[in-house]
Amino acid sequence: MKDIIVVYHEQPKLKSPIMVEGLPGVGNVGKLAAEHLISQLKAKKFATVYSKHFPPQVLIGDDGVIRLVSNDLYYHKTGSGHDIVILSGDYQGISQEGQYEISYEVLDMFEKLGGSRVYTLGGWSVGKLIAEPRVLGATTSAELVKELKTVGVEFSKDEPAGGIVGAAGLLLGLGKLRDLDAACLMGETSGYFSDPKSAQSVLEILEKLLGIKIDFTELEQHAKEIDELTASLNDLKPAVSKTDELKYIG
Amino acid sequence: MKDIIVVYHEQPKLKSPIMVEGLPGVGNVGKLAAEHLISQLKAKKFATVYSKHFPPQVLIGDDGVIRLVSNDLYYHKTGSGHDIVILSGDYQGISQEGQYEISYEVLDMFEKLGGSRVYTLGGWSVGKLIAEPRVLGATTSAELVKELKTVGVEFSKDEPAGGIVGAAGLLLGLGKLRDLDAACLMGETSGYFSDPKSAQSVLEILEKLLGIKIDFTELEQHAKEIDELTASLNDLKPAVSKTDELKYIG
Amino acid sequence: MKDIIVVYHEQPKLKSPIMVEGLPGVGNVGKLAAEHLISQLKAKKFATVYSKHFPPQVLIGDDGVIRLVSNDLYYHKTGSGHDIVILSGDYQGISQEGQYEISYEVLDMFEKLGGSRVYTLGGWSVGKLIAEPRVLGATTSAELVKELKTVGVEFSKDEPAGGIVGAAGLLLGLGKLRDLDAACLMGETSGYFSDPKSAQSVLEILEKLLGIKIDFTELEQHAKEIDELTASLNDLKPAVSKTDELKYIG
Amino acid sequence: MKDIIVVYHEQPKLKSPIMVEGLPGVGNVGKLAAEHLISQLKAKKFATVYSKHFPPQVLIGDDGVIRLVSNDLYYHKTGSGHDIVILSGDYQGISQEGQYEISYEVLDMFEKLGGSRVYTLGGWSVGKLIAEPRVLGATTSAELVKELKTVGVEFSKDEPAGGIVGAAGLLLGLGKLRDLDAACLMGETSGYFSDPKSAQSVLEILEKLLGIKIDFTELEQHAKEIDELTASLNDLKPAVSKTDELKYIG
Repeated sequence: MKDIIVVYHEQPKLKSPIMVEGLPGVGNVGKLAAEHLISQLKAKKFATVYSKHFPPQVLIGDDGVIRLVSNDLYYHKTGSGHDIVILSGDYQGISQEGQYEISYEVLDMFEKLGGSRVYTLGGWSVGKLIAEPRVLGATTSAELVKELKTVGVEFSKDEPAGGIVGAAGLLLGLGKLRDLDAACLMGETSGYFSDPKSAQSVLEILEKLLGIKIDFTELEQHAKEIDELTASLNDLKPAVSKTDELKYIG
Repeated sequence: MKDIIVVYHEQPKLKSPIMVEGLPGVGNVGKLAAEHLISQLKAKKFATVYSKHFPPQVLIGDDGVIRLVSNDLYYHKTGSGHDIVILSGDYQGISQEGQYEISYEVLDMFEKLGGSRVYTLGGWSVGKLIAEPRVLGATTSAELVKELKTVGVEFSKDEPAGGIVGAAGLLLGLGKLRDLDAACLMGETSGYFSDPKSAQSVLEILEKLLGIKIDFTELEQHAKEIDELTASLNDLKPAVSKTDELKYIG
Repeated sequence: MKDIIVVYHEQPKLKSPIMVEGLPGVGNVGKLAAEHLISQLKAKKFATVYSKHFPPQVLIGDDGVIRLVSNDLYYHKTGSGHDIVILSGDYQGISQEGQYEISYEVLDMFEKLGGSRVYTLGGWSVGKLIAEPRVLGATTSAELVKELKTVGVEFSKDEPAGGIVGAAGLLLGLGKLRDLDAACLMGETSGYFSDPKSAQSVLEILEKLLGIKIDFTELEQHAKEIDELTASLNDLKPAVSKTDELKYIG
Repeated sequence: MKDIIVVYHEQPKLKSPIMVEGLPGVGNVGKLAAEHLISQLKAKKFATVYSKHFPPQVLIGDDGVIRLVSNDLYYHKTGSGHDIVILSGDYQGISQEGQYEISYEVLDMFEKLGGSRVYTLGGWSVGKLIAEPRVLGATTSAELVKELKTVGVEFSKDEPAGGIVGAAGLLLGLGKLRDLDAACLMGETSGYFSDPKSAQSVLEILEKLLGIKIDFTELEQHAKEIDELTASLNDLKPAVSKTDELKYIG
């Protein structure tokens, strides 16, 4: 068995595409954002990546039909300068070696499509609830830093300490070795739960970068539900300070 | 050394065989069922799969003679539409990568035999003693879901959450990539011990699917012994509720 | 880098050699026995096996000069029917895959020497101090069981449960796949410490099997020191029963 | 993806170079020393080693620009007998197999440069604060032991027990297999924190071995800060004995 098996459902011709990556991670910010983007753009799945570096697991749909866990690539034709490719999926590679292998393979696939730039999405855990999450950035070049600042991305000397791990980091690191422009957009998040508010912050930056318009009704509804949940937890433990009251749950 | 070493004891010519898989897992349901099937059908071992993905271990027979741990393939000629292949063994692959490798190799072997369908057997842990275990299903296609419902397999939106891990899942997931029909039959089980009652439930479904007749005397005797054991444990701890009293032991 | 690097110091011509393996394990029985045998036979090192499956470690000699951890092969010409090859070393492979790789490689080397049989040595932990350790056996064939019984090796239905793990098991299991005769000799041991008495029991069996004479003065001295140590520990904790008083220390 | 990706920034022609290795380890002694040496010699980076055996991580510079974690090779032309190559980096390989692979690759690179000798630097943890750290040695040959004694390196029968693990050991062990002269210089260190005093001791030996002159102002300043910190910790816990008061923090 090959380490990675790629199945193409379609071979799209794309115009100098930009890839947006959002996989499970801190606050699930990247995955939430990528899935919202896929749904809003009605992006089409064109390739599925299977690998022995993912867990040996199938998921069962509501109809009783299974699918092997995977990462998936979608495309959206914008009709203007750059088409869009979106990478999302069930898991990141389990082993560190596997994470390298999978990111490398995805970059190979993206290069074959004539890809021009990568935005990876993630959460930056600050350990407390944030009313208005900032979006922090990291890029493969100083020019890109300048460009991202103009749309509101913040760059901060001490954040995030420890750098960026997983696909959100590797696509930048391995991309840079190929002279591919790439940037990571990290939404501030408590890290306590799946964080739609942080995902929205990240997507609002992407709107400007990609020249697209996104409807946030669904994410806002989701965020409201979580706000209500955290408020009700506050009522239960009135003596605990607002920022410390929730345990880390994912 | 090759990652997987297959030794053929015989090269059977089989008629469009159906494979039944039962390896160690939750409640040992799959392995118990597969071994009972092998014994009842007097199926013949025709291939042994060794691998460095299994533990570095030999088992010692009562005669003092060792054998390297393995997975094994048996066949039974039915004389009618489909012959039967049964996969059982000592272990599943230890690492996740190893589980992918071994399931992939077994599917290669099965395809060379002209295999047409796979049934994987497993236990679905419900955390309490079950008098009449249901059999839950998951399949590679909607048609197969329909077919299995007609023989009493249940499909439930929320069960099992988390999908299916290990060979019972991978043979479906990797099989689907080859357009092989495959289904998993999961017997409800407490998960507290090796569960012959759940194995019998699964085999009763298989009887209908394979058009065979199985004698359950042995499994029923085994189940009775376990019932007596759990009853005596109940007597020891009368204050504990029936469903919670046993510790998970395998 | 190759997974395994073999360095030959000499290419001995051997007469249908028998290999004796003794690597670190339960009670250090195998390694103690193999090293005593090497020293008593003045066996010559002819090959060293390095591997990335061993720890990334060098050991420092008393002279300040290092050597990379390894397994080593020695030979002794008996002048009669079978010459002797002895395998000892610093470690077994760390990962299970590595253990398979290394045992497989050693068998390749042994076959090139015209090897005819393998004896692997190990300890069989019984969890209490044993005055007269028995030697238990396991083999690749019923004929070999019969042969070993004639020199005092015992075969016991329930011992050792769980079979044999590591090189002592794999050389049998992988050897059997090559139709190589092989047997494991396991000395009973408390398993609490490095056990020279158990090593001596195993070597006394080997004396008969190999038709050699071994001086045990050194091992007996070593055993006496350990007896005195355990006796003094007894004096410290007089209330504890003799068999339970020592903690497992390796 | 290849296991190891080497990017050359320059292909220097070097005169029979000597390599100095200093990677993260006990007391961070090796890395501190190697980085001080790079900075003092104004050595030029000529090659970067990336690998899936390093963590899947990028680090972010103060300017917001990332780099993939790596090991790096620098050179310094001495104008006399031997040029100098320095190996430093963010991490050692995470898995033991990875550590072998990377050290082997580095030795390949060094041999292509005509390399003649390797000095690896490390810390030797003694578990207490040391006013005047000794430098202990281990080498690939008795001649080298003699040579190192003349510049003040100490060789001690019982130190370090357990040998040397990681790159500092493997470059010796794998180097010896290529008949490369190599020695490890280990500065005594408490092991409680990053230890510039121990790094300086090691560099003072290197000054003599390499025939270079190093300014230690920066390291001494760094050491003074740590002395003040440990003194202030002493004031906080006056009842604790001097050698035991600090917890192991790296």
